[in-house]
Amino acid sequence: MSDYVDGRLLIIGGAEDKEGECKILKRFIQEAGGRESIITVLTVATGYPEQVGAQYQELFQKLGGGEVQILDVSERTGANEESLVRQLEKSSGVFFTGGDQLRITGIMGGTRLGKALHKLYEQGVIIAGTSAGASVMSDTMIVGGEAGTPKKNTLTMAPGLSLLRSVVVDQHFAQRGRIGRLLTAISQNPYVLGIGIDEDTAILVHSDGRFLVVGSNTVTVVDASPTIASNVSESSPGQALVLTPVLMHVLSEGYGFDLKRRVAHPKIRK
Amino acid sequence: MSDYVDGRLLIIGGAEDKEGECKILKRFIQEAGGRESIITVLTVATGYPEQVGAQYQELFQKLGGGEVQILDVSERTGANEESLVRQLEKSSGVFFTGGDQLRITGIMGGTRLGKALHKLYEQGVIIAGTSAGASVMSDTMIVGGEAGTPKKNTLTMAPGLSLLRSVVVDQHFAQRGRIGRLLTAISQNPYVLGIGIDEDTAILVHSDGRFLVVGSNTVTVVDASPTIASNVSESSPGQALVLTPVLMHVLSEGYGFDLKRRVAHPKIRK
Repeated sequence: MSDYVDGRLLIIGGAEDKEGECKILKRFIQEAGGRESIITVLTVATGYPEQVGAQYQELFQKLGGGEVQILDVSERTGANEESLVRQLEKSSGVFFTGGDQLRITGIMGGTRLGKALHKLYEQGVIIAGTSAGASVMSDTMIVGGEAGTPKKNTLTMAPGLSLLRSVVVDQHFAQRGRIGRLLTAISQNPYVLGIGIDEDTAILVHSDGRFLVVGSNTVTVVDASPTIASNVSESSPGQALVLTPVLMHVLSEGYGFDLKRRVAHPKIRK
Repeated sequence: MSDYVDGRLLIIGGAEDKEGECKILKRFIQEAGGRESIITVLTVATGYPEQVGAQYQELFQKLGGGEVQILDVSERTGANEESLVRQLEKSSGVFFTGGDQLRITGIMGGTRLGKALHKLYEQGVIIAGTSAGASVMSDTMIVGGEAGTPKKNTLTMAPGLSLLRSVVVDQHFAQRGRIGRLLTAISQNPYVLGIGIDEDTAILVHSDGRFLVVGSNTVTVVDASPTIASNVSESSPGQALVLTPVLMHVLSEGYGFDLKRRVAHPKIRK
């Protein structure tokens, strides 16, 4: 079984530029088909679906998108409605807004809408998400955890949308000092790669398992697979972590990373 | 030329426990000779030398130190006074308080007191420093720089006391989200190893270049010597950094690290 299907993801660390060059949002529109795109904004994560939905609708139209529809689901019954499923199926690009990642999985998980989303992804439709919409992309997602010193068993995690396997994504990464909680996450199972995405920064994940960095800040990848010494299995909850060595990759725009081989790629000169 | 002389250093990430078990401060007293110790508290970094000096004097006496003297120098003329040099020369342990690292180097650098300190260090007298007193230990020290995304040329650095070669030390590390600025520092010259020390955590550096972690949180070592790709020499100031791969070591109490070989040591069972 391959961890990667024919899908594309645009995973955004939150607070993407909406007033200047809007590089990330423009890239999403381009990947969705530009003027020919049918973009669906999924506001399920947010408690303010009308404001947030209207903001992105206006932005995507202004930035060169085609048809932009807002799909608001606030309960599981809605996520099983035939009309909403039909609406989603038309999309050439899907965009998850920020909010609370547990709203996304709690409302959509295991519903017809959830299944339709996976089908779109497998068909190659670009699926984007910012902030909570970024966290939700992986198998297991971080739901909560303090910034600061990495400490054992201090995270709350939950099953995500499983669009991207074998990774844990954290967002608002450098801005909220989240390296400690990402290290805690990967220490629990070094099979999983940690990807910390800064604000106004995104990774565009291709079907071959490679990603490209887009945006103004950095993406930090932490890989505990070479780790020899760890105290995860011996220390008590809350105890300061040991993890050595960890491979770390700090990447900015134009640089890439191969999730299968776990190595960075040099900048692609345009 | 070896980077290590016969000295011992206790480098503390700030906010060490002063009310509970006081593990770090007790370790300092032990290294200085316990009941037989002559401890000198150097308050040169702080703008409140009387309060800070009195606090540490009381603490060291309470925790089992021998003679505890406060040495307050607030200008360079004082740092050249014979009487103060004599006072310092008696020490079996020296402790730098927190404050502003530039006060330490600006006032003591190149003075008779500064030379006496180096001599004590070479004789094997333990030299400890917390917060600003920690930063000052290395050749080049971080003076200022924002938390957040690592960005080129965003740090202010200055020459330190040069007691520990080939490293850059940062303090209040996880608590103030300083991984980005430590990565920026090592990207400028990967020969230098980055050591981030959390609050209430310290490294006890031995003359053979090994250190042991003491305290409740973690020490993070970042090593850019294996780095293949970096944008430091090509990108503009303020641009987001690229540094891949970086070796990272997260260590907590009882674990050690060999600064010469750049590898971690397993926990020493007591």
